[in-house]
Amino acid sequence: MSGKKLHFGIIGAGRIGKVHAETLAFRLPEAEIMAVADVNGEAAAALAKRCNIPKVAGSAEEIIGDKTIDAVLICSPTGTHADLIVQAARAGKHIFCEKPIAFSLKKIDAALAAVKQAGVQLQIGFNRRFDSNFARVRKAVASGEIGTPLMMHIISRDPAPPPIEYVRASGGIFLDMTIHDFDMARFLIGDEVEEIYTSAGVRVDPAIGEAGDLDTALVLMRFKNGVIGTIDNCRKAPYGYDQRVEILGSGGKIATENRYANEAVVSTGKSVYNDLPLNFFMDRYTESFALELGAFTEAVLQGKPTPVTGIDGRIPVAMALAARKSYDEHRPVKLAEVEG
Amino acid sequence: MSGKKLHFGIIGAGRIGKVHAETLAFRLPEAEIMAVADVNGEAAAALAKRCNIPKVAGSAEEIIGDKTIDAVLICSPTGTHADLIVQAARAGKHIFCEKPIAFSLKKIDAALAAVKQAGVQLQIGFNRRFDSNFARVRKAVASGEIGTPLMMHIISRDPAPPPIEYVRASGGIFLDMTIHDFDMARFLIGDEVEEIYTSAGVRVDPAIGEAGDLDTALVLMRFKNGVIGTIDNCRKAPYGYDQRVEILGSGGKIATENRYANEAVVSTGKSVYNDLPLNFFMDRYTESFALELGAFTEAVLQGKPTPVTGIDGRIPVAMALAARKSYDEHRPVKLAEVEG
Amino acid sequence: MSGKKLHFGIIGAGRIGKVHAETLAFRLPEAEIMAVADVNGEAAAALAKRCNIPKVAGSAEEIIGDKTIDAVLICSPTGTHADLIVQAARAGKHIFCEKPIAFSLKKIDAALAAVKQAGVQLQIGFNRRFDSNFARVRKAVASGEIGTPLMMHIISRDPAPPPIEYVRASGGIFLDMTIHDFDMARFLIGDEVEEIYTSAGVRVDPAIGEAGDLDTALVLMRFKNGVIGTIDNCRKAPYGYDQRVEILGSGGKIATENRYANEAVVSTGKSVYNDLPLNFFMDRYTESFALELGAFTEAVLQGKPTPVTGIDGRIPVAMALAARKSYDEHRPVKLAEVEG
Amino acid sequence: MSGKKLHFGIIGAGRIGKVHAETLAFRLPEAEIMAVADVNGEAAAALAKRCNIPKVAGSAEEIIGDKTIDAVLICSPTGTHADLIVQAARAGKHIFCEKPIAFSLKKIDAALAAVKQAGVQLQIGFNRRFDSNFARVRKAVASGEIGTPLMMHIISRDPAPPPIEYVRASGGIFLDMTIHDFDMARFLIGDEVEEIYTSAGVRVDPAIGEAGDLDTALVLMRFKNGVIGTIDNCRKAPYGYDQRVEILGSGGKIATENRYANEAVVSTGKSVYNDLPLNFFMDRYTESFALELGAFTEAVLQGKPTPVTGIDGRIPVAMALAARKSYDEHRPVKLAEVEG
Repeated sequence: MSGKKLHFGIIGAGRIGKVHAETLAFRLPEAEIMAVADVNGEAAAALAKRCNIPKVAGSAEEIIGDKTIDAVLICSPTGTHADLIVQAARAGKHIFCEKPIAFSLKKIDAALAAVKQAGVQLQIGFNRRFDSNFARVRKAVASGEIGTPLMMHIISRDPAPPPIEYVRASGGIFLDMTIHDFDMARFLIGDEVEEIYTSAGVRVDPAIGEAGDLDTALVLMRFKNGVIGTIDNCRKAPYGYDQRVEILGSGGKIATENRYANEAVVSTGKSVYNDLPLNFFMDRYTESFALELGAFTEAVLQGKPTPVTGIDGRIPVAMALAARKSYDEHRPVKLAEVEG
Repeated sequence: MSGKKLHFGIIGAGRIGKVHAETLAFRLPEAEIMAVADVNGEAAAALAKRCNIPKVAGSAEEIIGDKTIDAVLICSPTGTHADLIVQAARAGKHIFCEKPIAFSLKKIDAALAAVKQAGVQLQIGFNRRFDSNFARVRKAVASGEIGTPLMMHIISRDPAPPPIEYVRASGGIFLDMTIHDFDMARFLIGDEVEEIYTSAGVRVDPAIGEAGDLDTALVLMRFKNGVIGTIDNCRKAPYGYDQRVEILGSGGKIATENRYANEAVVSTGKSVYNDLPLNFFMDRYTESFALELGAFTEAVLQGKPTPVTGIDGRIPVAMALAARKSYDEHRPVKLAEVEG
Repeated sequence: MSGKKLHFGIIGAGRIGKVHAETLAFRLPEAEIMAVADVNGEAAAALAKRCNIPKVAGSAEEIIGDKTIDAVLICSPTGTHADLIVQAARAGKHIFCEKPIAFSLKKIDAALAAVKQAGVQLQIGFNRRFDSNFARVRKAVASGEIGTPLMMHIISRDPAPPPIEYVRASGGIFLDMTIHDFDMARFLIGDEVEEIYTSAGVRVDPAIGEAGDLDTALVLMRFKNGVIGTIDNCRKAPYGYDQRVEILGSGGKIATENRYANEAVVSTGKSVYNDLPLNFFMDRYTESFALELGAFTEAVLQGKPTPVTGIDGRIPVAMALAARKSYDEHRPVKLAEVEG
Repeated sequence: MSGKKLHFGIIGAGRIGKVHAETLAFRLPEAEIMAVADVNGEAAAALAKRCNIPKVAGSAEEIIGDKTIDAVLICSPTGTHADLIVQAARAGKHIFCEKPIAFSLKKIDAALAAVKQAGVQLQIGFNRRFDSNFARVRKAVASGEIGTPLMMHIISRDPAPPPIEYVRASGGIFLDMTIHDFDMARFLIGDEVEEIYTSAGVRVDPAIGEAGDLDTALVLMRFKNGVIGTIDNCRKAPYGYDQRVEILGSGGKIATENRYANEAVVSTGKSVYNDLPLNFFMDRYTESFALELGAFTEAVLQGKPTPVTGIDGRIPVAMALAARKSYDEHRPVKLAEVEG
């Protein structure tokens, strides 16, 4: 790489945009941020100041049109992702885009086609692949440490439900929350899901049901290679963010635990206890956000494929659609059914 | 009870018959074994010697006809359970019977009708209810310690598959292995399952498939009260007997771990490790076998209902039939569908 | 062994006498109890009934003089141990004696001389050697699993202080409580302690100090082979019986945790907790009591040395005397100093 | 603070200097680095480039004489600390100095006198106070969560011994390694040690012994408030950096475990294992290095006392001298004995 830096433009200065900007500014010597844009100009300006970004652009289009920029970071709302990908691809920019690309496979396919035609690189923000726990599980499966995988369980529960306005715009629990777990499932097993069966309900907050969504769900998946597995999602885990996975293989099992702010255990006359696990995805997945951008930067600078491609962004959306269809029709649904 | 002892006759001197005989002989002062019978006369004689049992009976019928006996322990093969229950009930004996009562609901109903008519007490050998882990989980649910239950997961894996002849006579994985977990599910949640969906396969041993059975299964259950849950069964867990449960409630979660022969952890330059969990159900559930007989003895002597009734023996069989039907028909099956 | 049984007489029907009687009666087919004696005749009679012991003897002397008895179990108060050993040895009985043999090395030496002269076998009741945790640690040291041992820590804390009358008669914390840990230290390291330094105080109950005793103590030991280690004793651990050990070796470490009645973990909005560890030495060390008697019975029947010999009973007493001397004189004390 | 930044000069661009520079540059908006100096000019230049430091100074004196600098970070070798403190204090700079201040109490006293006279602020780099584990333990003690503290154990073992040249210049194990634990002991208990007894040896590497040092040590401490405790140090823990503490109080205990790179547990047919704990102090204590500088910056900007004062830097040196004296003279040594 010999000193060559990758020049970034950031579209979206919200929560995740800030996390990425700080990684690029302070942790990745190979990256340089040239400009940032946000419909909220003040947010963009504050982020520029915090991270020494030389330019606050007036719009996403200005970022995409900026000749000094090699790659764009799309951190704007989901509804804008697909169009911005198309525009950025046509402008020859490499693209790092937050998940999901879109809620419809048609829009995703259009975006991926533009990327392909332009020959630019695209990485989707499935950061959990870079988490040390999940990476360790993948390593165990890929290396044969636990033999051939047979069954998998993902537990993925939020500490508390998001605001109801967020729920309404979220695309529903499967596209908003489970989508990360669908990516995990494919990543950890290294194979594709063929069929999905969903059992779910509204158990946490009736308002979520009134908004047409679900808050508690069990998704059962059958992979092409015969693995069967579950995803357990709930919008409320009173004890904090609960993110675990367990895989049984023919030679053993691997299971992860939650992460804690400290490793202290207190014993009193009443119980043996420790403090709650990390409560917020930003704390739980801090390192993974930095590592995914490092991997993207390295891939682009070295002309290698990115580790989470456009198709990796597409398939979990199809899985989410199948999961919802299964719930609606109360039967197992093949992934092929949600195509075309 | 003032010195009154309950007089037992044991039918079946096999593995579980021996366990129960030792409990009655050495751990339950309120119990006295009067006689034992087994089609294998030598086994019966050996057990009589070991446990100071005064009489080796020539047949189950002789036990049932023995006027000095108050209660019979049915530990013979499953195929004989229902008929022996009917005979014992007609003879006015209280009955402790190993699970399952039978593989068909019709036979079970006939047995339960005989018990009802005779007014005797019946307890089914679902020993796991008396295990300290599962009892603790039930306590957490019943007391509201974790709020209203929302989701449940049972992991129940054997260390190694049984001999193929055993598999052939077992009634299939759902009636042989999952049946314990079906009982656990009802017991822990305190409610009935309404619908079951099964995904399963033959992943451990092709011979099991050739025998018409499955060795790896995920059963998804929906309870009447809205709880959704899974049972994960595998005939082979290379690291040993794996028996865990986890319940998420509106106020928290409770999860159990396996039990170990020692609590030593070794750290070397390669890893931090401990010895494998207890490998055999006899070691893992030792105490529960003693406690269930204690509870039966107390219930009979005090004229109270037994803690695991005939209907508790029937419902898991219906669940097993529904689980198989779901697998065969590749769709969710309501429990009502396997009735009459 | 071919059916040969070892015939026991039990002297002392108190708490530990009952534990041993139940083991002999119900768990050791090679053992048979012929008689029991206690200064409290009712206690002896109750135990005889519970364990089907055919004879209640009027005195220890009657037990020792009984020709049908091969071995005596001395479970009477400490003050009587040494004399009973001498009498039993002279009568040709094999002896299992609870710890400690006596509070003075002179009395111990007299007892051991009598045993030697009679050629009978003697085992001292250091049951913890048979606990699965401590046995596992010993195995790790002996097998080289953690290399050459360098440092050792024993934590040994009681849930609550004993009654003050017990304290007064106990011989002091080092002879009463630490003595088990002194045995553990020798057993686990497989070498002898050369020098002891004690730091201790009265922190739990002033009445213990008024009785001339200590309730909180750290004993630092230097072994002949260069290992250095500590024993941490406290008469009160509010969270329950705390019994752990950790050894660092040149190749790794091994550490044990406490034992629990269940393996359930509850997570609520306040903490992640489990129930307290086993609170009572009878529950914590149940199995070890049975195993030590099994080992004694086997050793006597097979004419092999017992696993915990008279000298193993003597050395911890010397260590306790050195620990107290170190505290009194506020300096490191060599074990050789308490001899002669 | 309203935008006021604290201007830093860094003396020493070695390992710890780099860690601190990155914290100031990237994580502390309230800090600004004006210049860096190192006897190795290239190291200083490289660090300046990495952290956008505008000036590479030719010497420590140039840093200290720089009018734009408010505070100096002393990260040079231990032998230079005391003199640099004196110079910086006389120049009116606030001072953050790595531990230890010096190996002799006389030099320390001179430095502290200069600081006092100049009225500047001084913080010593005992970073472990800011570690989330040890901070949690302190909180438990200070808040009474475990009652009145009675006993304390610190385990502090390095993964591997340092190069022998480092050992020779280190001041010995007590001044180099145990010094952190002496600080921990005072910090956690919130009281002063009165007397120390040391048992130690050369067990890891004979070359360390030939250099006049020890590599394996147990230090027993008695605090003024009656707490007794130990420090366990070894230069080699084959399984990685081992940093734990346990405190028993009248109301309970608190104990910390090591920190791991992942929370995955693998179970195979051989054992249940996880990867080794974090192996390097930089990884283990990353956050604490950032937090200590944040606390220093805040203290200076707000004119509050620093959380680790000059006297906190002095007392552990006295404890180290007492620990060595105890070893040399084979007797308990009062801290008062190493004064004057």
